[in-house]
Amino acid sequence: MIKNINHIAIIVPDLEGALAFWEGALGLKVGGREAVPAEGVDVAFLPIGESNVELLKPTVADTGVARFLEKRGPGIHHMCFEVDDIDATMEQLRAHNVQLINEQPQVGHGGRQYAFVHPKSTGGVLVELYQLSDE
Amino acid sequence: MIKNINHIAIIVPDLEGALAFWEGALGLKVGGREAVPAEGVDVAFLPIGESNVELLKPTVADTGVARFLEKRGPGIHHMCFEVDDIDATMEQLRAHNVQLINEQPQVGHGGRQYAFVHPKSTGGVLVELYQLSDE
Repeated sequence: MIKNINHIAIIVPDLEGALAFWEGALGLKVGGREAVPAEGVDVAFLPIGESNVELLKPTVADTGVARFLEKRGPGIHHMCFEVDDIDATMEQLRAHNVQLINEQPQVGHGGRQYAFVHPKSTGGVLVELYQLSDE
Repeated sequence: MIKNINHIAIIVPDLEGALAFWEGALGLKVGGREAVPAEGVDVAFLPIGESNVELLKPTVADTGVARFLEKRGPGIHHMCFEVDDIDATMEQLRAHNVQLINEQPQVGHGGRQYAFVHPKSTGGVLVELYQLSDE
Protein backbone atom coordinates (compact mmCIF):
# COMPACT_ATOMS: atom_id res chain seq x y z
CA MET A 1 0.00 0.00 0.00
CA ILE A 2 2.88 2.35 0.88
CA LYS A 3 5.25 2.07 -2.08
CA ASN A 4 8.23 4.24 -1.27
CA ILE A 5 9.42 7.56 0.07
CA ASN A 6 8.59 9.86 -2.82
CA HIS A 7 10.46 12.83 -1.42
CA ILE A 8 11.92 14.59 1.57
CA ALA A 9 11.00 18.27 1.43
CA ILE A 10 13.53 20.78 2.67
CA ILE A 11 12.73 24.46 3.07
CA VAL A 12 15.51 26.78 1.99
CA PRO A 13 15.89 30.56 1.81
CA ASP A 14 17.29 30.39 -1.71
CA LEU A 15 17.62 27.59 -4.24
CA GLU A 16 21.05 28.52 -5.56
CA GLY A 17 22.60 28.48 -2.12
CA ALA A 18 20.97 25.13 -1.34
CA LEU A 19 22.05 23.63 -4.67
CA ALA A 20 25.64 24.59 -3.90
CA PHE A 21 25.51 21.86 -1.25
CA TRP A 22 23.09 19.27 -2.62
CA GLU A 23 24.31 19.40 -6.21
CA GLY A 24 27.70 21.06 -6.08
CA ALA A 25 29.20 19.32 -3.05
CA LEU A 26 27.14 16.16 -2.51
CA GLY A 27 26.80 15.44 -6.23
CA LEU A 28 23.06 14.88 -6.64
CA LYS A 29 21.67 15.93 -10.01
CA VAL A 30 18.77 18.34 -10.48
CA GLY A 31 15.90 16.47 -12.13
CA GLY A 32 13.69 19.51 -12.52
CA ARG A 33 12.95 23.02 -11.35
CA GLU A 34 9.68 24.86 -11.40
CA ALA A 35 7.89 27.86 -10.01
CA VAL A 36 4.56 26.95 -8.40
CA PRO A 37 2.89 30.32 -7.78
CA ALA A 38 -0.33 28.63 -6.63
CA GLU A 39 1.57 27.15 -3.67
CA GLY A 40 3.93 30.09 -3.23
CA VAL A 41 7.11 28.13 -3.82
CA ASP A 42 9.98 27.64 -6.21
CA VAL A 43 10.94 23.98 -6.29
CA ALA A 44 13.97 21.92 -7.31
CA PHE A 45 13.88 18.10 -7.37
CA LEU A 46 17.01 16.00 -7.04
CA PRO A 47 16.29 12.31 -7.68
CA ILE A 48 18.10 9.75 -5.57
CA GLY A 49 17.21 6.11 -6.11
CA GLU A 50 13.43 5.82 -5.97
CA SER A 51 13.14 9.06 -3.94
CA ASN A 52 13.85 12.76 -4.33
CA VAL A 53 15.27 15.55 -2.29
CA GLU A 54 12.79 18.38 -2.85
CA LEU A 55 14.04 21.89 -2.15
CA LEU A 56 11.29 24.45 -1.48
CA LYS A 57 11.90 28.18 -1.50
CA PRO A 58 8.92 30.23 -0.28
CA THR A 59 8.00 33.01 -2.70
CA VAL A 60 4.94 34.39 -0.92
CA ALA A 61 4.55 35.58 2.68
CA ASP A 62 2.17 33.93 5.15
CA THR A 63 2.11 30.47 3.64
CA GLY A 64 2.92 27.46 5.80
CA VAL A 65 6.37 27.09 4.27
CA ALA A 66 7.14 30.83 4.64
CA ARG A 67 6.14 30.74 8.31
CA PHE A 68 8.20 27.58 8.85
CA LEU A 69 11.30 29.29 7.42
CA GLU A 70 10.71 32.40 9.48
CA LYS A 71 10.14 30.58 12.77
CA ARG A 72 12.38 27.53 12.58
CA GLY A 73 14.91 28.37 9.91
CA PRO A 74 15.79 26.13 6.97
CA GLY A 75 15.47 22.39 7.37
CA ILE A 76 13.35 19.32 6.71
CA HIS A 77 9.69 20.26 6.41
CA HIS A 78 7.91 17.02 5.57
CA MET A 79 8.30 13.52 4.20
CA CYS A 80 6.07 12.18 1.44
CA PHE A 81 5.07 8.57 0.89
CA GLU A 82 3.78 7.31 -2.42
CA VAL A 83 0.72 5.10 -2.01
CA ASP A 84 -1.17 3.12 -4.61
CA ASP A 85 -4.61 4.13 -3.34
CA ILE A 86 -4.78 7.41 -1.48
CA ASP A 87 -8.49 7.09 -0.68
CA ALA A 88 -7.96 3.70 0.94
CA THR A 89 -4.94 4.97 2.89
CA MET A 90 -6.87 8.00 4.17
CA GLU A 91 -9.78 5.79 5.19
CA GLN A 92 -7.41 3.46 7.02
CA LEU A 93 -5.82 6.39 8.85
CA ARG A 94 -9.22 7.77 9.85
CA ALA A 95 -10.17 4.33 11.17
CA HIS A 96 -7.18 4.67 13.51
CA ASN A 97 -8.28 8.15 14.62
CA VAL A 98 -5.43 9.82 12.77
CA GLN A 99 -6.07 13.50 12.12
CA LEU A 100 -5.77 14.56 8.47
CA ILE A 101 -5.05 18.11 7.36
CA ASN A 102 -6.82 17.51 4.04
CA GLU A 103 -10.06 15.62 4.45
CA GLN A 104 -10.17 14.95 0.72
CA PRO A 105 -7.26 14.34 -1.66
CA GLN A 106 -6.09 17.55 -3.30
CA VAL A 107 -5.10 17.56 -6.95
CA GLY A 108 -1.72 19.03 -7.71
CA HIS A 109 0.65 19.52 -10.57
CA GLY A 110 0.47 16.78 -13.20
CA GLY A 111 -2.72 15.34 -11.77
CA ARG A 112 -1.11 13.78 -8.73
CA GLN A 113 -3.37 13.46 -5.71
CA TYR A 114 -2.02 14.43 -2.32
CA ALA A 115 -3.06 14.88 1.28
CA PHE A 116 -1.25 15.85 4.46
CA VAL A 117 -1.48 14.05 7.79
CA HIS A 118 -1.41 16.23 10.90
CA PRO A 119 1.85 16.07 12.91
CA LYS A 120 -0.25 15.74 16.07
CA SER A 121 -1.11 12.23 14.96
CA THR A 122 2.32 11.16 13.71
CA GLY A 123 4.51 12.18 16.63
CA GLY A 124 5.70 15.51 15.26
CA VAL A 125 6.35 14.61 11.63
CA LEU A 126 4.44 16.31 8.82
CA VAL A 127 3.57 13.41 6.51
CA GLU A 128 2.31 13.78 2.95
CA LEU A 129 0.68 11.07 0.88
CA TYR A 130 0.97 10.98 -2.92
CA GLN A 131 -0.91 9.00 -5.48
CA LEU A 132 0.68 9.65 -8.84
CA SER A 133 -1.58 10.21 -11.81
CA ASP A 134 -0.13 7.57 -14.06
CA GLU A 135 -1.27 4.65 -11.96
CA MET B 1 28.19 7.60 -5.64
CA ILE B 2 25.04 8.37 -3.57
CA LYS B 3 22.96 5.20 -3.88
CA ASN B 4 19.74 5.88 -2.00
CA ILE B 5 18.15 7.30 1.11
CA ASN B 6 19.02 4.61 3.66
CA HIS B 7 16.78 6.02 6.37
CA ILE B 8 14.93 8.96 7.81
CA ALA B 9 15.53 9.11 11.56
CA ILE B 10 12.69 10.27 13.77
CA ILE B 11 13.13 10.94 17.47
CA VAL B 12 10.25 9.76 19.61
CA PRO B 13 9.56 9.75 23.35
CA ASP B 14 8.46 6.11 23.30
CA LEU B 15 8.61 3.41 20.65
CA GLU B 16 5.24 1.83 21.38
CA GLY B 17 3.41 5.12 21.00
CA ALA B 18 5.25 5.86 17.76
CA LEU B 19 4.59 2.38 16.37
CA ALA B 20 0.88 2.87 16.98
CA PHE B 21 1.04 5.37 14.10
CA TRP B 22 3.80 4.06 11.82
CA GLU B 23 2.86 0.41 12.07
CA GLY B 24 -0.67 0.32 13.44
CA ALA B 25 -2.24 3.11 11.42
CA LEU B 26 0.03 3.64 8.39
CA GLY B 27 0.72 -0.06 7.93
CA LEU B 28 4.53 -0.18 7.71
CA LYS B 29 6.09 -3.35 9.11
CA VAL B 30 8.80 -3.42 11.75
CA GLY B 31 11.93 -4.91 10.23
CA GLY B 32 13.91 -4.93 13.46
CA ARG B 33 14.25 -3.50 16.92
CA GLU B 34 17.33 -3.18 19.03
CA ALA B 35 18.73 -1.47 22.08
CA VAL B 36 21.99 0.37 21.35
CA PRO B 37 23.28 1.32 24.79
CA ALA B 38 26.54 2.64 23.32
CA GLU B 39 24.54 5.33 21.49
CA GLY B 40 21.90 5.75 24.19
CA VAL B 41 18.96 4.78 22.02
CA ASP B 42 16.36 2.12 21.45
CA VAL B 43 15.73 1.76 17.73
CA ALA B 44 12.99 0.37 15.50
CA PHE B 45 13.42 0.10 11.72
CA LEU B 46 10.46 0.03 9.35
CA PRO B 47 11.56 -0.75 5.78
CA ILE B 48 9.81 1.06 2.95
CA GLY B 49 11.07 0.38 -0.55
CA GLU B 50 14.85 0.82 -0.55
CA SER B 51 14.68 3.06 2.56
CA ASN B 52 13.67 2.82 6.20
CA VAL B 53 11.83 4.89 8.74
CA GLU B 54 14.10 4.70 11.79
CA LEU B 55 12.49 5.49 15.14
CA LEU B 56 14.93 6.54 17.87
CA LYS B 57 14.01 6.68 21.53
CA PRO B 58 16.69 8.27 23.73
CA THR B 59 17.55 6.09 26.74
CA VAL B 60 20.33 8.20 28.25
CA ALA B 61 20.31 11.88 29.23
CA ASP B 62 22.60 14.47 27.65
CA THR B 63 23.10 12.78 24.30
CA GLY B 64 22.39 14.67 21.08
CA VAL B 65 19.11 12.84 20.55
CA ALA B 66 18.00 13.34 24.17
CA ARG B 67 18.68 17.07 23.93
CA PHE B 68 16.88 17.25 20.58
CA LEU B 69 13.78 15.66 22.11
CA GLU B 70 13.91 17.94 25.13
CA LYS B 71 14.37 21.16 23.17
CA ARG B 72 12.43 20.59 19.95
CA GLY B 73 10.06 17.76 20.76
CA PRO B 74 9.62 14.64 18.65
CA GLY B 75 10.23 14.84 14.91
CA ILE B 76 12.67 14.21 12.09
CA HIS B 77 16.26 14.30 13.34
CA HIS B 78 18.38 13.43 10.31
CA MET B 79 18.41 11.83 6.89
CA CYS B 80 20.96 9.20 5.91
CA PHE B 81 22.31 8.53 2.43
CA GLU B 82 23.98 5.28 1.50
CA VAL B 83 27.17 5.83 -0.48
CA ASP B 84 29.44 3.29 -2.12
CA ASP B 85 32.67 4.91 -0.92
CA ILE B 86 32.39 6.97 2.25
CA ASP B 87 36.03 8.07 2.19
CA ALA B 88 35.66 9.44 -1.33
CA THR B 89 32.39 11.19 -0.44
CA MET B 90 33.94 12.81 2.64
CA GLU B 91 36.94 13.94 0.62
CA GLN B 92 34.65 15.42 -2.00
CA LEU B 93 32.66 17.28 0.67
CA ARG B 94 35.83 18.66 2.25
CA ALA B 95 36.97 19.85 -1.17
CA HIS B 96 33.76 21.93 -1.25
CA ASN B 97 34.46 23.33 2.24
CA VAL B 98 31.63 21.34 3.78
CA GLN B 99 31.99 20.96 7.55
CA LEU B 100 31.91 17.37 8.81
CA ILE B 101 30.98 16.39 12.36
CA ASN B 102 33.06 13.22 12.10
CA GLU B 103 36.42 13.80 10.47
CA GLN B 104 36.89 10.04 10.05
CA PRO B 105 34.24 7.41 9.35
CA GLN B 106 32.92 5.85 12.55
CA VAL B 107 32.26 2.12 12.71
CA GLY B 108 28.83 1.15 13.94
CA HIS B 109 26.68 -1.87 14.41
CA GLY B 110 27.33 -4.63 11.86
CA GLY B 111 30.50 -2.98 10.61
CA ARG B 112 28.77 -0.20 8.75
CA GLN B 113 30.81 2.97 8.41
CA TYR B 114 29.10 6.29 9.05
CA ALA B 115 29.78 9.99 9.35
CA PHE B 116 27.65 13.05 9.96
CA VAL B 117 27.75 16.29 7.98
CA HIS B 118 27.24 19.49 9.95
CA PRO B 119 23.85 21.19 9.40
CA LYS B 120 25.71 24.51 9.04
CA SER B 121 26.97 23.29 5.69
CA THR B 122 23.75 21.68 4.43
CA GLY B 123 21.23 24.44 5.07
CA GLY B 124 19.88 23.16 8.37
CA VAL B 125 19.64 19.44 7.65
CA LEU B 126 21.61 16.91 9.68
CA VAL B 127 22.92 14.53 7.01
CA GLU B 128 24.42 11.12 7.72
CA LEU B 129 26.45 9.05 5.27
CA TYR B 130 26.49 5.24 5.41
CA GLN B 131 28.74 2.76 3.75
CA LEU B 132 27.38 -0.69 4.49
CA SER B 133 29.81 -3.41 5.44
CA ASP B 134 28.82 -5.92 2.80
CA GLU B 135 30.00 -3.82 -0.12
